[in-house]
Amino acid sequence: MTPSHSPYPGPLSAEDKNKLDALYARLSKGVPYLTGYPCNQHYDYSEIAPFLGFSANNIGDPWLNSNYALNSLEFERDVINRFGQWLHAPADDLWGYVTNGGTEGNMYGLYLARELHPGGIVYYSEDTHYSVNKIIHVLGMRSIMIRSQENGEMDYDDLRATVQLNRDKPPIIFANIGTTMKQAIDNLPKIKEILQKMAISRYYIHSDAALSGAYLPFIENAPAFDFGAGAHSISISGHKFIGSPTPCGVAMALKSNVQRIGRAIEYVGAMDTTIPGSRSAITPLILWYALHRQGEKGMRILTNQCLEMAEYAVQAMNKAGIPAWRNAHAVTVVFPRPGDNLIRKWSLAPYRDIAHLITMGHITRQTVDNIIADLTAEMQGKEQKACNS
Amino acid sequence: MTPSHSPYPGPLSAEDKNKLDALYARLSKGVPYLTGYPCNQHYDYSEIAPFLGFSANNIGDPWLNSNYALNSLEFERDVINRFGQWLHAPADDLWGYVTNGGTEGNMYGLYLARELHPGGIVYYSEDTHYSVNKIIHVLGMRSIMIRSQENGEMDYDDLRATVQLNRDKPPIIFANIGTTMKQAIDNLPKIKEILQKMAISRYYIHSDAALSGAYLPFIENAPAFDFGAGAHSISISGHKFIGSPTPCGVAMALKSNVQRIGRAIEYVGAMDTTIPGSRSAITPLILWYALHRQGEKGMRILTNQCLEMAEYAVQAMNKAGIPAWRNAHAVTVVFPRPGDNLIRKWSLAPYRDIAHLITMGHITRQTVDNIIADLTAEMQGKEQKACNS
Repeated sequence: MTPSHSPYPGPLSAEDKNKLDALYARLSKGVPYLTGYPCNQHYDYSEIAPFLGFSANNIGDPWLNSNYALNSLEFERDVINRFGQWLHAPADDLWGYVTNGGTEGNMYGLYLARELHPGGIVYYSEDTHYSVNKIIHVLGMRSIMIRSQENGEMDYDDLRATVQLNRDKPPIIFANIGTTMKQAIDNLPKIKEILQKMAISRYYIHSDAALSGAYLPFIENAPAFDFGAGAHSISISGHKFIGSPTPCGVAMALKSNVQRIGRAIEYVGAMDTTIPGSRSAITPLILWYALHRQGEKGMRILTNQCLEMAEYAVQAMNKAGIPAWRNAHAVTVVFPRPGDNLIRKWSLAPYRDIAHLITMGHITRQTVDNIIADLTAEMQGKEQKACNS
Repeated sequence: MTPSHSPYPGPLSAEDKNKLDALYARLSKGVPYLTGYPCNQHYDYSEIAPFLGFSANNIGDPWLNSNYALNSLEFERDVINRFGQWLHAPADDLWGYVTNGGTEGNMYGLYLARELHPGGIVYYSEDTHYSVNKIIHVLGMRSIMIRSQENGEMDYDDLRATVQLNRDKPPIIFANIGTTMKQAIDNLPKIKEILQKMAISRYYIHSDAALSGAYLPFIENAPAFDFGAGAHSISISGHKFIGSPTPCGVAMALKSNVQRIGRAIEYVGAMDTTIPGSRSAITPLILWYALHRQGEKGMRILTNQCLEMAEYAVQAMNKAGIPAWRNAHAVTVVFPRPGDNLIRKWSLAPYRDIAHLITMGHITRQTVDNIIADLTAEMQGKEQKACNS
């Protein structure tokens, strides 16, 4: 019963087709040089492509049915349940949804924290991702930045001293489970101990596990960062370790907390518990596909591959005289900031005097070797210049 | 230089493949019955599908270059510029980006308004979409709900009287350019006149033109709602009139206002002016494709087709004894709320004692006739029951 005529008056113009082809060529060429951002490029979602033919929409709460019949809610719930198991969520108290990316998941966690603890103060380290400052501002929350240690981890002495001065306000801890530049992991057991020693019973912990949260569950004796370790909400990106052509992620929280902020909306026949209204039905399918096609076996293989590649990069760089290093369990290799040419060529992410390479699934030894060759050539060029002058 | 091995340890299991196939079948079957929500299902993005192979990302401000080389920023700027022309944006003062949907565009507009007018009060009519209340709460803004007229339009007398009582606080007008249930359009010239008569010089107008904003530019003598009519920001959905497999939209604002809230972020080499961090590079491509493939000619054809279908539905329903009606320039046909069976069958969106059919691009006369047949049968069944009892 859909119209039989074409939706368009004609084909794409030759000029426009050329533009699209040129973009495809540019992206194809760019993939191997995308080395500084935590975005895996090694996947195959061609089995999902046919779903681009539907205006599906997961509007409303994913755990309830919706009046909007074209949805992939069951796949979304499957994704959340899978993550919930890996992240030790209490079986009867898990809630979550598929987001448009890490920022939305962090905003959800902090929004929930604000609603539960209206007078609370957000504590976050100076190594926290730049977007968190923006979220806190959007949400109008009071916040205090905590010093970082050299490795990027929160300075617990500074946290203790600062919370001590504000014991009457519920602390809302924004924990980095992998900071942006050094992928350092804030220590949840230590943070909880600090709060407990001050007899603080009303507090909230949000774990921003954008990159690390998707693979720490597959490492023996990994740092505790999840619901089992006391997190009240967790945000993980889908386009980072797992990889996705469009940013996405999961926001997870304790159901009992979420139920305190939802409102029933007759128009869609669902609870309005998420931040957006209309929500993609494709991104839940992408994550579902990746998790099911990988299985735990594939996730373990990918985890080991990325960690081994990071270790390879550190050792090869050190051998070449580059003082590279990485935190424990990190796939982020930190080294001195190179010149702008190399930053552009390899899409490296710089910050002050450092830069990093992140060994996502598409990074090969060849790529690492090529970067090292470029870094070495640059160093030699500088030395040459210093000798000549 | 990308890995030559498969990203996965094996194929999708037979059980999972069946689940995916079952979803495809369910969605295919559902399309012709999706009649109550403003989501066009008639399009063809198969030329965009190959881009699902790239982890592209339009992170940061679309008007600046990004360190993240795999992006479609030039296509995003083209989409915004095209809308900007249609919406009479001042050529040297347009800013905008492609959002994940209408809620994000509205949040952006109100966030900007809050930053520019910290003590301001948001005025919005009682027919406003349910998500706006949530946004206002998230942003912690003061707000007052204004009465609506019977047709869904704001009650201007109530607005005048209410603003009058708060003349010391900058008014932030959230204007519905098509309300959710009745697609009524708030009158911007009238609103501006009210503010001017009170000599209010500091104010902000955000136009929520989720559905109507994509086709009003193609109607002669359409109501004024855009930058030319005094809006400071406008949100339009991409998955509504235009149609998209994943929710998206455009948020547009005056560049001079946006520049007052941005922050430069070294990590991505761009300004952090948008609400999300990572942003889809696919949705800008989808909108670019639709706008280029349609051209103004196609947009006009689609606009006329939808308006004619709405008029056909009103007349055919009236002929069948159903008191249906629509606002001027609306593709939303309002009629008395049917029973739950029909609401489910046709994905109708009910609210209190009304429901609506929205004649998006995929709605045919046959669909309208079938709905009317079902509504008539239901009415006759009720009459029969009344006679028998």
